[in-house]
Amino acid sequence: MRIAELSRRTAVPVPTIKYYVREGLVPRGELTSRNQATYDDRHERRIRLVRALIDIGGLSVATTRDLLAQLDNPDASTDNLLGRTMLNLNPSRERVDDETRASAAAQVRALVDGRGWRVDTHDPTLDVLIDLVAALRALGEDDLLEILDTYAEAAEKIAAIDLAVVSRRENLESIIDGAVVGTVLGGSMLLALRRLAHIDASGRMFRRSSGDVSGL
Amino acid sequence: MRIAELSRRTAVPVPTIKYYVREGLVPRGELTSRNQATYDDRHERRIRLVRALIDIGGLSVATTRDLLAQLDNPDASTDNLLGRTMLNLNPSRERVDDETRASAAAQVRALVDGRGWRVDTHDPTLDVLIDLVAALRALGEDDLLEILDTYAEAAEKIAAIDLAVVSRRENLESIIDGAVVGTVLGGSMLLALRRLAHIDASGRMFRRSSGDVSGL
Repeated sequence: MRIAELSRRTAVPVPTIKYYVREGLVPRGELTSRNQATYDDRHERRIRLVRALIDIGGLSVATTRDLLAQLDNPDASTDNLLGRTMLNLNPSRERVDDETRASAAAQVRALVDGRGWRVDTHDPTLDVLIDLVAALRALGEDDLLEILDTYAEAAEKIAAIDLAVVSRRENLESIIDGAVVGTVLGGSMLLALRRLAHIDASGRMFRRSSGDVSGL
Repeated sequence: MRIAELSRRTAVPVPTIKYYVREGLVPRGELTSRNQATYDDRHERRIRLVRALIDIGGLSVATTRDLLAQLDNPDASTDNLLGRTMLNLNPSRERVDDETRASAAAQVRALVDGRGWRVDTHDPTLDVLIDLVAALRALGEDDLLEILDTYAEAAEKIAAIDLAVVSRRENLESIIDGAVVGTVLGGSMLLALRRLAHIDASGRMFRRSSGDVSGL
């Protein structure tokens, strides 16, 4: 198809598509003449994915390019890149003393072992979680860490349904697409649902404490 | 205390503290002479909070300033700001046709009503969730939406423990601090745990499909 048709199908303006191509986010079309290129379903699909990652996932063009490059040439670090991308964390580490970090590492290790999760000791997501736990301890917000077991149990159920849904797909390409979209947009959906549940739960608590239990 | 002591206690360098004060993230100290200011526990606590939001939560200085300004003068929009901050979404909306968005809105409404969550119809987090669902539909990834019920159930359990832990605190100030830190860092912890659970679940699936069930 021509670029105009591609634009119509994806609802992405032609100049934006050209920008994506220049930035290496979408592969070039096949040249049919000096000034004409033709595009196919793969281009359409890729544009939709780019649109989702940038517009909804809030990723930068650079991060999206790295992510897509890894997708096109998957290796062991793809998983890690996804993790880092989604977590949106500053790589600089909160300054915590060695003792606090060691104790945070022990707590995270016990949590992971307790659930029987098989995760490489050097997995960067493990480091991220340890940093977060250490940061909460350094902040003196240790009591918040009581949520960890409940969070881990919820994460396990979430991962099971994520895997079940994606693995039902027929070909590897759509499984990989589903994993990326599911990790980025699914993560945002999870946080949105958590916010809504917070709003509901604090509403109930407030109504109860003010004596208005009419609707409970 | 003097700024040097504040720096020692928080492990944040003096120039960084001065930068936070200039940027309006931390209140000025009380002037005791022309060139000397004195700081108290509130400054120490605020610096730790700023550090957590910026270094671990990955928020920008501008977002952090907005968030802290709202914290200092809480009103109805505080909740919404927190939601938007955490979701880290580009406010521009994926272009989806009216029909897709209406159908996404109906699905989200049914989900929220089904769980008995009381959320204002105009709550911006609801709009964010509708946008995400609409984006998945527009991407043709409708099957991924099968996760929604499980996610909502998990979110409800998570919100309950979040509220239980934070409301156990003694004063309003520490409850508000806990809610902010818990929302931002807790959100990152949840996503990290989800990643770890994904790694474990896909490891099991891969080992099983390749016939190595030795460790299962």
